[in-house]
Amino acid sequence: MASAQKSKPGNYFEDFHVGMEIIHATPQTLTEGDIALYRALTGNRYAQYSSAEFARAAGMAGLSIDPLHAFHVVFGKSVPDISLNAVANLGYADGRFFLPVMPGDTLNTVSEVIGIKQNSNGKTGVVWVRTRGFNQRGETVMSFVRWVMVNKFEMDNPAPDPVIPDLPDAVPASELEGYPDMRDWDAALSGSPHMFDDYAVGEKINHVDGMTVEEAEHQIATRLYQNTAKVHFDAHGQKDSRFGKRLIYGGVVISIARSLAFNGLANAGQMLAINAGSHVSPLFAGDTIYAWSEVLDKAVLSETCGALRLRLVAVKDQDPGAFAYRTDAGKYADGVLLDFDYWAAIPKR
Amino acid sequence: MASAQKSKPGNYFEDFHVGMEIIHATPQTLTEGDIALYRALTGNRYAQYSSAEFARAAGMAGLSIDPLHAFHVVFGKSVPDISLNAVANLGYADGRFFLPVMPGDTLNTVSEVIGIKQNSNGKTGVVWVRTRGFNQRGETVMSFVRWVMVNKFEMDNPAPDPVIPDLPDAVPASELEGYPDMRDWDAALSGSPHMFDDYAVGEKINHVDGMTVEEAEHQIATRLYQNTAKVHFDAHGQKDSRFGKRLIYGGVVISIARSLAFNGLANAGQMLAINAGSHVSPLFAGDTIYAWSEVLDKAVLSETCGALRLRLVAVKDQDPGAFAYRTDAGKYADGVLLDFDYWAAIPKR
Amino acid sequence: MASAQKSKPGNYFEDFHVGMEIIHATPQTLTEGDIALYRALTGNRYAQYSSAEFARAAGMAGLSIDPLHAFHVVFGKSVPDISLNAVANLGYADGRFFLPVMPGDTLNTVSEVIGIKQNSNGKTGVVWVRTRGFNQRGETVMSFVRWVMVNKFEMDNPAPDPVIPDLPDAVPASELEGYPDMRDWDAALSGSPHMFDDYAVGEKINHVDGMTVEEAEHQIATRLYQNTAKVHFDAHGQKDSRFGKRLIYGGVVISIARSLAFNGLANAGQMLAINAGSHVSPLFAGDTIYAWSEVLDKAVLSETCGALRLRLVAVKDQDPGAFAYRTDAGKYADGVLLDFDYWAAIPKR
Repeated sequence: MASAQKSKPGNYFEDFHVGMEIIHATPQTLTEGDIALYRALTGNRYAQYSSAEFARAAGMAGLSIDPLHAFHVVFGKSVPDISLNAVANLGYADGRFFLPVMPGDTLNTVSEVIGIKQNSNGKTGVVWVRTRGFNQRGETVMSFVRWVMVNKFEMDNPAPDPVIPDLPDAVPASELEGYPDMRDWDAALSGSPHMFDDYAVGEKINHVDGMTVEEAEHQIATRLYQNTAKVHFDAHGQKDSRFGKRLIYGGVVISIARSLAFNGLANAGQMLAINAGSHVSPLFAGDTIYAWSEVLDKAVLSETCGALRLRLVAVKDQDPGAFAYRTDAGKYADGVLLDFDYWAAIPKR
Repeated sequence: MASAQKSKPGNYFEDFHVGMEIIHATPQTLTEGDIALYRALTGNRYAQYSSAEFARAAGMAGLSIDPLHAFHVVFGKSVPDISLNAVANLGYADGRFFLPVMPGDTLNTVSEVIGIKQNSNGKTGVVWVRTRGFNQRGETVMSFVRWVMVNKFEMDNPAPDPVIPDLPDAVPASELEGYPDMRDWDAALSGSPHMFDDYAVGEKINHVDGMTVEEAEHQIATRLYQNTAKVHFDAHGQKDSRFGKRLIYGGVVISIARSLAFNGLANAGQMLAINAGSHVSPLFAGDTIYAWSEVLDKAVLSETCGALRLRLVAVKDQDPGAFAYRTDAGKYADGVLLDFDYWAAIPKR
Repeated sequence: MASAQKSKPGNYFEDFHVGMEIIHATPQTLTEGDIALYRALTGNRYAQYSSAEFARAAGMAGLSIDPLHAFHVVFGKSVPDISLNAVANLGYADGRFFLPVMPGDTLNTVSEVIGIKQNSNGKTGVVWVRTRGFNQRGETVMSFVRWVMVNKFEMDNPAPDPVIPDLPDAVPASELEGYPDMRDWDAALSGSPHMFDDYAVGEKINHVDGMTVEEAEHQIATRLYQNTAKVHFDAHGQKDSRFGKRLIYGGVVISIARSLAFNGLANAGQMLAINAGSHVSPLFAGDTIYAWSEVLDKAVLSETCGALRLRLVAVKDQDPGAFAYRTDAGKYADGVLLDFDYWAAIPKR
């Protein structure tokens, strides 16, 4: 008596409809253990996520989970329902971090389908979801939109009426939340004298350092977030895939690139919003990640705190000082892994 | 002045006698750090071991150490005294989990030799031990029997009178302990609608997903449990061994197979007893583990909680949907890694 | 508008002068998560760093961070300022551990330049620094001297007047601090019956076991300490280096060798001082570490507690029972990785 029905097959394009709400499984309590592991796996060195004293002096409640870490956890929960049968993770938009996640907090994840459009080939479609993370008190700690290309279950199934959500190019600076006062900020301890005032729109920063990713590292990180996408873990199953090997979860690239960005942006450690993001090309074990940033915009948030809008570009096996991005034809240059646009809090002088 | 005597050579077959009690070294305090690492290394997603709130709603005291994790810790302590010179880890029986292990608890391990029998070749013998784990209050948190084939120190030493312990085929359902009331169980958060009532004896479940194990991963996990068996860590020393490389600790296989079993048994996350278990073939780094389960028995434990007796079979580099187990001749089929028989708690409707 | 100035280039020989004080970035709060990771990465089994109950019975305040772990953290902070452009890490001396680091404590690091000497080739120079680790109350938890060979920025720059600090061959036993009373010491739980009284000066101990190090393991450990030296992480950048691949942080070798030393020195788990240390040859991923120790000196610290001065020698891919150390010509023998001289506390009978 064999039963396949007890295992989850994941959702196909036909399973989604606009307005549908999905409560995702496996709430996760995050602890100091998660913080230590995140640091050890990504190289995170931003002072407010490394030292409880520094965090409190900066006006935070204590040592909290890096917002990007919390993002991976909330994202990870949505994978079994949203992207288990995804062909591609197409993009992020309108990501907002509202509240800190403190050790001991438990994250729950709920997604709402906000857009849907069948592709002209009839085999796949694009699904847009807004995913929200809640803590154990039911408070929304973050919200973001992502869209994925998902396989149809049967090509002959009729196409739904397309609904394409209206998404902002960027989160308006006036809507940024959750930044502390950053008044008592020790630049010797944070690792850089460069404050809000020192960065100019258009400025590009070479983060210099590189980090090679091993199979064990990305698997451990991806399991820490309880992201279960098969392509990251199953070398046997991947042998017959397009790339013939395991793909590294894109969130690993974002976190390592952000950790590398410490060297040049040490005071901009707190992510406030994700404006846009796309995984331009895949990363495999043995590849080395480098990163550079460009200041896209600046905004004053308070008397003591500003925000930088940054483009974070991760590249593979090449000098980030070449600032590789797009070719003259507008395509991404060879070796570009990630194009990520976000707001970060940074103290004013 | 060279001294070898300060280092422990481990025990040989002649060192064991029935009734001997061995207090094992290195008590270990388990913390939220261990929980985070166990999740990151195994992919554990059972909701009651992921969320403190879910655990409390299910009637547990809070976020506790997964019983299988605690088992590896208790087992690990016994290795330097029991199986450092072991040729093979032959089996487990009569494993019972009595009390939860909470973060901050310290585990101590004591073993008693309960059986002994020299093999006819005169070179090795089988030793049966009952190993118990205690917390810092002296309460027994678990107990299990295992038997190992151990080298003799000298072939000419006389054989002891054989004593073969009487072991149950399975822990009787009436003797299962430590299950919570599971009354307030949220099936959306746990990841599956399938409860006690939905499983039938004889039903087989394909857990679908695969997980490839890297050298770094199994070494980190095995050290987390403070299991020191040389075969898992010493590539140089293993070059001249039968397999020519490091062997992966069998407990890594059990834990990963159990984590894969989430996909099909998400509500059966709490192990209550180990009825039997054997490591059928070795796992090496780079191999991919898949798993399937069979429901062997069912038992009602309370008004709200039942137990499933499950056979968990781990296979290597093959579709678990083929349900490989034994050949017509009764031998284990190619690629079977683990045959593990246990009871798990699961809520009733 | 490309800017390299926001990234730190690290200091060159010309940037150092005697008396200079450097406050290093990124204070780090250490938690139970760090303890679990340190154990999982190194195989640490010393009972007072594994069990809170054992630690308290031994007269300690509870489960604390292994002093060697804390040393790596303090050392790691100094890397971006002291040794980013270092050619070689030449040695350690006069390392003293004053106070335990408890979970929740935050470590800050400050270095003072105490010596400087240009090499005759005019390309490099040696810089001596005393590095101190402070906790969040401003108490000095440790202090050590290290010296490194650093590149000059321009060969033509004039040489400074040489200042060579006067360093002790060893920390005098009478100045050792921070040992507990060790009165209530359970030798069954600690893993060895051998106490202070059982070790003789000149005695050599074979630690028997071996541990192979993987790229993922040393990278995760080195990031846990927030040590950012590029040579450990950047496989692409290292391709054109002298060895053509990543070098493993020397602290990984010390910690694994110390963990292997459990087998023979299980009661000498608490490091009190670092007398001297040098990394004799590099370790690469895939190599297997073995270790042996020699008792160099003994000292009575109190009625219940003594100290052993130990030479810890790590070797690579060879039997540590050969006690390889130096050739007749006085050079280090092939395969020697580490020559490390330290004091450890050990209970008296």
